Order: sequence, then structure tokens, then C-alpha cells
Amino acid sequence: MFSTPEKIVIGTASLDTLETPSLILDKEKMERNALALRERLKRFQVGFRPHFKTPKNIDVFRTMVGADSGPATVSTLKEAEYLFAHGITDILYAVGVAPNKLDHIFDLRRRGANLSVILDNAEMAVQVAAKARAAADPLPVLLEIDSDGHRGGISPADPELLRIGSILSEGGAHLAGVMTHAGGSYDVPGEAAITEAAERERHAVVTAAEKLRAAGLPCAIVSVGSTPTAHFARNLTGVTEVRPGTYIFFDLVMSGLGVCRDDEIAISVLATVIGHQSRRGWTIVDAGWMAMSRDRGTASQPVDQFYGTVCDLDGRPYPDLVMLQANQEHGIVALRPGAAQTPPTLPIGTRVRILPNHACATAAQHDRYLVVNGGREIEVVWPRLNGWTA
Amino acid sequence: MFSTPEKIVIGTASLDTLETPSLILDKEKMERNALALRERLKRFQVGFRPHFKTPKNIDVFRTMVGADSGPATVSTLKEAEYLFAHGITDILYAVGVAPNKLDHIFDLRRRGANLSVILDNAEMAVQVAAKARAAADPLPVLLEIDSDGHRGGISPADPELLRIGSILSEGGAHLAGVMTHAGGSYDVPGEAAITEAAERERHAVVTAAEKLRAAGLPCAIVSVGSTPTAHFARNLTGVTEVRPGTYIFFDLVMSGLGVCRDDEIAISVLATVIGHQSRRGWTIVDAGWMAMSRDRGTASQPVDQFYGTVCDLDGRPYPDLVMLQANQEHGIVALRPGAAQTPPTLPIGTRVRILPNHACATAAQHDRYLVVNGGREIEVVWPRLNGWTA
Repeated sequence: MFSTPEKIVIGTASLDTLETPSLILDKEKMERNALALRERLKRFQVGFRPHFKTPKNIDVFRTMVGADSGPATVSTLKEAEYLFAHGITDILYAVGVAPNKLDHIFDLRRRGANLSVILDNAEMAVQVAAKARAAADPLPVLLEIDSDGHRGGISPADPELLRIGSILSEGGAHLAGVMTHAGGSYDVPGEAAITEAAERERHAVVTAAEKLRAAGLPCAIVSVGSTPTAHFARNLTGVTEVRPGTYIFFDLVMSGLGVCRDDEIAISVLATVIGHQSRRGWTIVDAGWMAMSRDRGTASQPVDQFYGTVCDLDGRPYPDLVMLQANQEHGIVALRPGAAQTPPTLPIGTRVRILPNHACATAAQHDRYLVVNGGREIEVVWPRLNGWTA
Repeated sequence: MFSTPEKIVIGTASLDTLETPSLILDKEKMERNALALRERLKRFQVGFRPHFKTPKNIDVFRTMVGADSGPATVSTLKEAEYLFAHGITDILYAVGVAPNKLDHIFDLRRRGANLSVILDNAEMAVQVAAKARAAADPLPVLLEIDSDGHRGGISPADPELLRIGSILSEGGAHLAGVMTHAGGSYDVPGEAAITEAAERERHAVVTAAEKLRAAGLPCAIVSVGSTPTAHFARNLTGVTEVRPGTYIFFDLVMSGLGVCRDDEIAISVLATVIGHQSRRGWTIVDAGWMAMSRDRGTASQPVDQFYGTVCDLDGRPYPDLVMLQANQEHGIVALRPGAAQTPPTLPIGTRVRILPNHACATAAQHDRYLVVNGGREIEVVWPRLNGWTA
């Protein structure tokens, strides 16, 4: 049913010779990011279920976990199939489950995947419980908790919480716990504000878990997840696992929030100068929104990075040089409006590396990672898993 | 060197049963869009070189041309390889050529592709001419003309025009003509304004062609291209070919400009309702920016469609219902701010179709088209060619 992407073989290649645009992954930085967060989380004695939606590649995922195993968080069933094909069985599908996905989910479980799902409403709970009973398979379900009004989820104060928990528990499913995602933590810059967001995230799920338990309902898992809160949480009491994803690569949004430095960002888009509009101060490169994505996450931050920060071939940012505008395969590189310095001289054929606003979005525009290890030589090519269906 | 995507086989499937999100292509609408533009352009006796960057699929491209042949415009060399593998030889690579792509380009030509390129500067002209001489292959080159200050290109008034033409012509390349893209036509709504943009586009390339010819330089091809100008141009005197792409699907940006109606938009994203936040008037669906793209092209238009217009399963828009916000795999559907009516009731499991801001960007988030023919049954699945490298 599912075929993993084939290994991509290329000959000798380096950042100096590759056709552009290409997505470059610096393994050295990625490994440092992986290690730093695992080290930080040790103090909390909390489980770690990294989100696969950022890398969508098995080698990066193994670096996240530091092992060949799971557990994993996924955002599509295609990701679940892929990880399962690579021997990872403990998988949380962390998007509210829809009726049309249930057959696929139960099929994956029949084949041996220990897949769990989330939901936040009674209608879906009724359907899931009935399907689980019919399949004689107590599907583990986490209740999605709204910790910051960002998206979906039940408020811990909502009486529906207990009703939905009971529907699942008394039906044929297994009420496995509660989970939340502090999406709002992406909007508040600085350690103090993110630490507060992390505490709100923790408080919401722990409160929900306590309510369920007080009502005699099971709630073994208490799961939180976001890159900012994983880095700045001071207290994870009552939380059993965290699910960050973006941290493995980091990006300009995370740097703008103060979660990382620019030189910790592990992915960049390699591009080549193809023209100039000197009168306008523009340099045209052969990477546009198709290579960078249309994500403009830094537009609402104090320092707007437009479509990305432009760096030299060794990854050093040119001061105030950004991709100001993007067409499908063209990027317009220029100084940030208001910048005082002289722009660098970038003759035709010059290669640059552009840091992304949002790692998940930029990586998704590519089907492979060209992997360097601190230098310019491509050591290996890792395919990415895009799309929803095998 | 290049393998075409395999045929994707699915069993019986319909919009009522498919896993979501999925990219749906209505063949009936697409064929109507293809025919309408070919009919319109007949009055001008002008060549037609549709842009492959929008569909990136051979079956859609054949519908554009109305035949198994070219000519074609492409935005990547991967697209050129794919079309060549499908027997199409007359191909224009319409992104300013970079030094690192020349070996690949001459290799494609050695294998039989009649590939031509564009450039807008003397440095690149020198490199291209030298490479063409060394390869004993007079690569056809079009000079990129700036018709509206939108991106790259030489102004027709710039003396560099003749110098670059001479470098190519006296070197080893073949100065084949001039080309432009009226990117500015996407910013001016209404037939009158777009007709003016079309005339500016025509005037710029025809002026450039006349200057080259007056200087004794060859200029056989005079090429323009954009979906709005192809639909509203009244005069194409002196133009030899047009290169539109988006028109084959259309999108909300084109509808906002008055180039098409919403019911002519041939692609949509199928999604399923997975939750509600009733207090906020939100319906949550399982399609976010990963399925829609982050393109917000209508944000600068009189009517903002946010991340897309929400329609029922048969493609009828719900009044003022849009995807207001998007996360990676979640979309927040709600009434447009300020809308007066009552939102529709969309219970859990309800399927909707969401029209895209920008066809090229939304289609690029998917690896296949699920093709319907006016109805709900999936008749065939057509793979898409994403990325840059085979």
C-alpha cells in the first residue's frame, strides 16, 4: 500500500556547483538543535514525542529522537504510513480526526501501528466510539484542549469535556488522555512572555486531566507541544510528554521570538543571481515563492525578514539584505526599506543562501534535503514526504 | 536521466468518499477555459506558447494546446525534461538563465530538445555566447524586456539592449527575439485597466524589437505573456506569440480582477469539517496552508477572500464564507468580517470545496489532480511535477 521514497543518488556535488534553487540542510546545526532540546528536557523527566510534520524524513526524525524508534507525532496519515514502514509504531495523529479517515486508521492499527487520534467534540466521539466497538479495537483517543483560543479544542472549563470523555470511555474507544498545542506562543516574543504561554499551556491540560480523573475517567497522557514553549517552559508538573517539531531546523520566526539565533537555523535555500535592476537597488535570484513558500511569518514581528534573510555561501547574513518580493521562480533581493548601508556587490552567477521564515512551509516546497555537514560538500540527499496520499 | 511520474491508479472514488484534503480538478471547466482563450486569440493570428508552470501535468498541457505537441513555456528545467520526455520539443525556459544551468541546457539540446532561454544582462550574454560557440550550438536566446517595472528585464529605451543583442549575435548564440511578462497586470482590476496594461506590454516588446532590427540585429520572436493581458488585449500588432498559464484553471485573484467568474475556477481543495468553536463562529476543517498554500493574493484586492472561498460539494460558494486563517493542516472557516448573514450549518464530517487565491501556488502544494467531469466521481488521477531536479 505504501512505498517509501527511493534513495536519491547524486554524484560529487557542492554548494558551488549544484543547480539552483535547492534546499540545503546543515546536519551539524540540526544535530546541535536536536541535542540541545533533549538535554533541556531532561530536567523535567517528561516524555518526548517530536512532531514529524517539520522534517518529513526518517533520517531527520531519528536525529530528533536520538534512536531508531518513536514515539512520533504526525500531521497526516501519509506520515503515519511512512513512519510505520520504517518500524516506528507509537504514533499520534495530531489533527482532529475526520469520519473519512477512520477506515484508514483502523487498517493501520490492524497492521500493527499503535496509532492514536485526537478530537474535540461529541459528534466525532460518538462515531469514533461506535467504530472502535464494531472493530473490537479500543482506539486510543486524546481530547484536544484549547489552551489559548488559537484554533480548535475544548476549554478545560467546558462541561462538554466530561461528556465527550464519557462517550469515548463508555463506548468502544480508549480515553487515553488530553493534549494541546500553544499556537499562541508564536505570537509573543521574548523568554518571559513565552514562559507565561508555556505555563498557560500546562495549566490548561493539567486542569482538564484533573477534571477527567475527578469524574472517574482515565487520563494517562497529558501532552503539550510547541517549539517556543518546549524551550522556555520552567514547570512541566503534571505533563507527561512534549511534541515540538520546528526546533529541529529553527527558522526566522523562531529567531524573531528569541527562541534561537540566526546561525542555528539549519535549512536554507541555495539560489543564484540572474539579474539586476540597479536603478531600483534590486538583485534578481532564481528562487521565488515556489522555493521559499509564501510564508511571511516575520511580517508581524518587530523585524520583518520579508521572504527571507540573504546569506553568503557559508551562511553568514549580509546585513539587512532580504528577499523583498517573490514571484513563482524569481526573488527580488534588496536592502530592507530604511537600511542605511551600501548593498553588497553580487555579480551574475553569485550564489546565496536564504534563511526561511517558517521551516515547515519552506521545506514543504521541496522534495529533498541536500545535506551538508558544516561545509559546502553535499554528503547525502534525503527525500521528503509531501502530500496526503500514498 | 529523467523518469516521468507513474500513473496513479485508484479504485472507485468520489468527492463523497475521498480522504481529505485533496486537490480536485474539474475537467469540464478546464476544457472550457482552454477553448475560450484559444478562440479569443484566433482573431489576432498570433502564436500560442502556454505556460506549463501552472498545470505541471502533460494531460492538462495537451488540453491547453489542443494537441499532443508544443510549443511550451516552462519555469524550470525539470519541466523542460518532462515535456521533452513526452515528445514536446519546442520549449522556452522563461526564467533568466543562470551559469549553473548551461551544461544541462546544452545537454537537453544535444538530446533533441529545441530549448531556448532568456536573459537581460551583458555578463550573462557573454557567458552564453561563449558556451554556445564552444558547444558549436547556436542556442536561441530571447532578450527579457521590462514592460512595467515589475521584476527583471531591460527597458526598451536602455542602450544596453543593442549591446547585449550584439554580444549574442556576434558570439556563438542565436538572437531569437524579445519577450516580456506584464506582471503588473495582476495589480489593476477591470477590463479597461488590463487592456491598457496589455497595450503597454505590447508596446514595450514591439519597440525593443524595432530597435534591434533597426540596428541590423535579428528579432524574429516578439513574445508576451500573462493571463489578464491575453484575455483583454485589443491589439497584438507586432507580437508573434502569447504565453499565458493561470487561465487554464483560473483562481480568485483572476476573478477579483474581472478576468473570470468564480464558477469558471477549475481547481478546488476538498476538505472536511473536523470541529467548531461556536462562540467564535469558527468551523475547523482539515485543510490548512499546506493544502491551500500561504498565497493571499486577494488581500490587496477590493474583496479579500482570505485563504479561499468556501463552496459546497457541488462547487456553489456559501455567501461570504471564507477560510479566515490557516495553520499547517487546519483551516478556520468563518464569515468574512462584517458579513451580515447567518453562517451555514456545517456539521462534523461535512465536505466543502475551497477555491484558491492563486492556482499555481495551491496546485504546487499537491502531487496529483483528482479529476472530476462536472460531477462528483473521480474519473482519473493526473500526477503533478513539482520540484527542480529529476
